[in-house]
Amino acid sequence: MKIAILGHGTVGSGVLKIIQDSALHPFEKDLSVKYVFVRPEKVDQNELFVDDYSTILNDEEVDVVVEVLGGLEPAKTMIIDALKHGKNVVTANKAVVARNLKEFDEIAEENGVKFYFESAVGGGIPWIINLERALRIDQIDSIHGILNGTSNYILDTMTKTGQSFDKVLKDAQDLGYAEADPSADIDGYDIENKLCISVDIAYNTFVKPGDHLLKFGIRNITDEDIKYFKKHNLIVKLLGRSFKKNNSFNFVVEPTLYTPGQIEAGIHDNYNFVGLRGTTIGKLTFNGQGAGEFPTAHALVQDILDLKANNVHLKRDFNEEFSLDNTTKKKNYVVRTSADLESKLPEYDIQKDGNYYHIAAIDTQKIHDVVNELSSDDKGIFFACISGGAYNPWIEK
Amino acid sequence: MKIAILGHGTVGSGVLKIIQDSALHPFEKDLSVKYVFVRPEKVDQNELFVDDYSTILNDEEVDVVVEVLGGLEPAKTMIIDALKHGKNVVTANKAVVARNLKEFDEIAEENGVKFYFESAVGGGIPWIINLERALRIDQIDSIHGILNGTSNYILDTMTKTGQSFDKVLKDAQDLGYAEADPSADIDGYDIENKLCISVDIAYNTFVKPGDHLLKFGIRNITDEDIKYFKKHNLIVKLLGRSFKKNNSFNFVVEPTLYTPGQIEAGIHDNYNFVGLRGTTIGKLTFNGQGAGEFPTAHALVQDILDLKANNVHLKRDFNEEFSLDNTTKKKNYVVRTSADLESKLPEYDIQKDGNYYHIAAIDTQKIHDVVNELSSDDKGIFFACISGGAYNPWIEK
Repeated sequence: MKIAILGHGTVGSGVLKIIQDSALHPFEKDLSVKYVFVRPEKVDQNELFVDDYSTILNDEEVDVVVEVLGGLEPAKTMIIDALKHGKNVVTANKAVVARNLKEFDEIAEENGVKFYFESAVGGGIPWIINLERALRIDQIDSIHGILNGTSNYILDTMTKTGQSFDKVLKDAQDLGYAEADPSADIDGYDIENKLCISVDIAYNTFVKPGDHLLKFGIRNITDEDIKYFKKHNLIVKLLGRSFKKNNSFNFVVEPTLYTPGQIEAGIHDNYNFVGLRGTTIGKLTFNGQGAGEFPTAHALVQDILDLKANNVHLKRDFNEEFSLDNTTKKKNYVVRTSADLESKLPEYDIQKDGNYYHIAAIDTQKIHDVVNELSSDDKGIFFACISGGAYNPWIEK
Repeated sequence: MKIAILGHGTVGSGVLKIIQDSALHPFEKDLSVKYVFVRPEKVDQNELFVDDYSTILNDEEVDVVVEVLGGLEPAKTMIIDALKHGKNVVTANKAVVARNLKEFDEIAEENGVKFYFESAVGGGIPWIINLERALRIDQIDSIHGILNGTSNYILDTMTKTGQSFDKVLKDAQDLGYAEADPSADIDGYDIENKLCISVDIAYNTFVKPGDHLLKFGIRNITDEDIKYFKKHNLIVKLLGRSFKKNNSFNFVVEPTLYTPGQIEAGIHDNYNFVGLRGTTIGKLTFNGQGAGEFPTAHALVQDILDLKANNVHLKRDFNEEFSLDNTTKKKNYVVRTSADLESKLPEYDIQKDGNYYHIAAIDTQKIHDVVNELSSDDKGIFFACISGGAYNPWIEK
């Protein structure tokens, strides 16, 4: 089986190393990398490197194209071109998968090839394959996850060290854990992409990332917030979650509070966590390396090995339709703001503690709407959901 | 695909329900249960019920035999008979798999059929398939798990309520969570079976349960022990673990202490937890329902669906040989005894605190040997390992 890798960044070179290093694996005779697509200025660095995509597309020996360029274009066009040239495609690119999964899958089907994307959600965690396997038997009505390692690293480090958000973010950038533009990680866009993909498979529907999906990130969190939560024995995580009931589902990315002793509170460093609830399997969760050269490359090679073994993944048409409704679940929230929250929510049970407000039993849509409104007065506003299983000091004391 | 189920207890009836209830799954036309093997006195209760095994063995329509009788015999003989009659076999029976995996696999190979056992370890958790998938790429050098839901339920309930071991065990028996003879669950035999099976696959070797494998259960734990651990911010779990290095591996089942905020401390009720460490995937852990009618039946049906889809599992010959050596890793332990521990370990750094002793840096073999020796003087002796990541009050204070 001959492979072409599009991109030679961290993950692309990880795939190349796993396949080329015979100490790492027992399949060297069956799998080989024939091309690595790179920018023109890098082409001379390695005999596998090419900068003309048509060389790959027109080589009938190439069975699999591994897309690890990232970003929307040219990734989207190159994936479609590969599929139309009868190449199987595997990708780690969550942004492009979240926006085009249904189209990629249809084009793959038309051309008698496969489109796999295990590494796009949860990095090395075998999440997609296990979600798909559970769906061979079960209905799945709930997905939740700490699906971004960078934001988890920031929150975990702030909790452990008491350092400020800016200091920890800068260190993470210096260590290469966070991008120069950290928005995708800290504003929830990356988790949104991964939750969209998970929901697409779980509910057999197609949900595109966009403003209609509720998300609130960790950009505004302060070391004072962390200290306040710790004082109340709570630990904050950036969570994505979705729950489906009958013909509607909710979908939210937001900071969420856990008590030590809840499993989510035990997800440290840059680890990812993701779980499902199914009809017969019950609750099932995974914890592992959500990013990085080798864990992500591992997941890409797993897809390649499934192609080789003809282990066919679950077939979805992504055609079922559900309405998005974030008003159905009421939860408790903590909001920190200098703006006048109480007058916006006269009908709610609110306790005030300095700049912190505890609001009981408010639906997700309402709290996001109010915080968005108040953020014009208080650009630094922050809030977090109190998870169902958490000890709630404002109720249980 | 026609199925025969051997046994109509909790799990057997779960398999029957999943396959027969078309609301639960999309495969009713492809899969059906043709026979359920039961005791003669039950035969008249259902038209699928038979008590003559030769009816099943000689029916060429039967593709898969699901063994959920439990116990060693007649399960072993019936599995071998099925394989020799050209039937694929799937089983949830960890005791029989742990003792006969290599033989079952060889007989299956000789007869051109498969022997699968996803449900034997971790119940509904897709542990075996993911261990096998990781091994398509990685070397795995470490397995650890909370692999018995009954003992976890007992420890978790004691921790939450402060109740005595006897009271919680009796409640668990009344609720059907624990057997009338609880030994397999509370003395570590069940975890030993599951760790043997996991190690067999991970290291491609064959380790039989038996006295040479170190195990110490929770039979002697008291509510005073739980209170003492809690005072030091520690939570106890019954853990199985194995670590391989070069040509040797260690293997132990023993109570282990965690700090709230470690993921293991977040495994509650009767949940199971299991994890691996691989060369490129890194650390990967799973948390889910380790037993029960539907989760276990779900895992059995997953094996059946793999047979149907011809998704071939990893091929192992279980022929590699490693020496068992529990002297290579030194850890810290807490022992509660009225016997004279200090004179047995004159060369160790021991701190005494009433009947509790903290011993620093002792190897697993040595501590188990000493505790076994002392247990003739103190039949109620209890001890626990302090896990690597736990806050250790005796060192770190």
